[in-house]
Order: sequence, then C-alpha cells, then structure tokens
Amino acid sequence: MPHITLNSDEPGIRGLFRFRPETARPLNELVEVLLRGPGTLTPGERELIAAYVSGLNECRYCCSSHSAYAAVQLPGGMDLVNQVRGDAGSAPVSAKLKTLLRIAAAVQQGGLNVTGQDVAAARAEGATDTEIHDTVLIAAAFCMFNRYVDGLATIAPDDPGLYAARAQRIVADGYLALLVEAQRQNA
Amino acid sequence: MPHITLNSDEPGIRGLFRFRPETARPLNELVEVLLRGPGTLTPGERELIAAYVSGLNECRYCCSSHSAYAAVQLPGGMDLVNQVRGDAGSAPVSAKLKTLLRIAAAVQQGGLNVTGQDVAAARAEGATDTEIHDTVLIAAAFCMFNRYVDGLATIAPDDPGLYAARAQRIVADGYLALLVEAQRQNA
Repeated sequence: MPHITLNSDEPGIRGLFRFRPETARPLNELVEVLLRGPGTLTPGERELIAAYVSGLNECRYCCSSHSAYAAVQLPGGMDLVNQVRGDAGSAPVSAKLKTLLRIAAAVQQGGLNVTGQDVAAARAEGATDTEIHDTVLIAAAFCMFNRYVDGLATIAPDDPGLYAARAQRIVADGYLALLVEAQRQNA
Repeated sequence: MPHITLNSDEPGIRGLFRFRPETARPLNELVEVLLRGPGTLTPGERELIAAYVSGLNECRYCCSSHSAYAAVQLPGGMDLVNQVRGDAGSAPVSAKLKTLLRIAAAVQQGGLNVTGQDVAAARAEGATDTEIHDTVLIAAAFCMFNRYVDGLATIAPDDPGLYAARAQRIVADGYLALLVEAQRQNA
C-alpha cells in the first residue's frame, strides 16, 4: 500500500503523476527528451540503460516498465534485456554500449565513482561527449525515479502483459503525450 | 577537470545546463516547482532538505549551493544549515521537519529504505501527504542532481561568496528565469 493516499488506483509512478501534476510535467518532459529525443544512442539503447539502472536499484516497477520499453525497441528483445541485466559485460551488445553501461553502474553507486578510466574506455570505443553526458544523466535520473516510486511505496503490478501493453503506447506516442492525455481525462 | 569537454567555464551544473539546453529546461522547471512553487513547506525548508541530501551524497557543488540558498531564506542562516547537516536530530528545527529530514535520509540510501514508521512519525507531527510526497521527491531529485554533477566531474568553486551571491539571485528571480536569461545571453 502506498505511504500516502493517492487520488487514483494507478500503479507506480503513474499514480504519483496523477497526485502531483505540477511535478509530473517536467519529469515527463525530461524522460521524453532524454530517452526519445534526437540523439545518436537509439531509444532502445537508452531505455536499456534506464532498465539496467532500475534493476541495480531493485525498483521493480521502473525495471519492469523500462525493460518492456527497451525490449520492444531492440532487435534482441527481452532476452537481450535479461542478459544485460544479468551480466552486462558478457551480453551481446556493442563494445561502446558496454562501456556506457559500466559508467551507468558507477553513477548508480554515486557520481564520484565514475573514473577517468571509465570515460576513457567509452571514448576509445567511439562514445561522444553527448553520449557520455546522456548516459550519466539517464543513470542519475533513474536513481531519482526509482527512489520516488519506491520511497512512496507505490504498487508494481505482477502481470508482464501490462508493462508490454504500455510499451506499445510509449513507443507510439511518447511519455509526454500520454501524460497530457491522462491529465485531460482526469480534468 | 570535467570528464567531457564543456562549451563554457561555468561551474557545477550550470556548465551542464549550457552544454545540453534540451535537458536543462525540464530540470530547471522541476526544481522551480519543487523548491519554490506553492506549498506548505517554506522554500527555505525545501532548500534545507536539498542541502542535507546533497551533503549525504558528498556533492560539494550542490551542497554548497543549496546550503547558501537555504541559509538566506531561513532565520537561523548558515549556522542552522550547518547544525542540520552535522546532526539533524539535535538541530533546532521543528519536530515535523526533523521527521521529514529522516525520510529524506532514508530516500538517499534507497527508496525501499523508507518505512511505514518513518511516514507515521511525520504524520504524527502534522506532515501532510503532499509534504511527505514533496520531501521524497526533493530527496530523490537531489540523488539525481548530485550524481549528474559529480558523475561528469564538474568544477565546484571554493569561494563561499560565489554561492552566496548566486543565492541572492535565485531567491529574487528563481531557477527558471535565471536559466532563460543565461540561454538568451548564449544565443
């Protein structure tokens, strides 16, 4: 049961967005630009970083959600997501993405844990400054979202089908459009 | 030296805002509404939570910044901020704020660390659901900002006068207005 009385039965962060629309807006603008905006990492790769960090933070709702969103956008699907979450170092992703996942894991532990060596390794595999920047910010942002969702003890549904269905809508319409639509329905 | 090549000498998160204006916008909208928007916790109290969490995360730039922003808005000034950072339990703040600081410290460790007892204690001291919500989100958000700033190894100036001067401008104009002004100057 959530720690506070929400004004809906919506699960996870969606109930928090409904409870506090003033903060929901910039939070959705942030994920929209960070995970789906123009960039040289694919949306699937960026969702994979989000899912990976959410797994490290043991946030079931966010990890299930972003695993589903990554799976639907990556050729390897959920098998690949599970391999990365199990052991990123041996998963069949590009050498560059492996180095970025290593940076993300360091950020999850704490910003000061990212070393010059981590960054040099990413650069040696062709990562750009913007890709390194975005990886750090995605990892940092999910350290926020995970704490937000679990710090208020929101509900994470068990049914994988719910996350998969949401993934289709996120990919089709995006975070911000779905928020605006939900807010219009609540008005 | 920052891990990536920034396009300015601006310190801390300000250099990152300049580097990536697309994410700067929602990040500033978030802190503006969360730390300065309408609410029953004063902006000084909310900045204090931000400074406290940034201290726990050992983020020198964010802790110096938000300590200065809290100090200028709280009757106890920087002495009070330092007492809270040193030992929140014995600092001369309200019983309610102490329980909220305890929740913030739990969030800093991880969302799952917030217990029903922590929340019941806050409620017993008169904290509302929105105050509990906002405390969790402020603490979570600074777990993001701290990791963003330190994960990219940005520069934190030593001179306390720089943070104090910025505090005056933040209090007068707000986060978003200062960002928009800086982006206009850079255009």
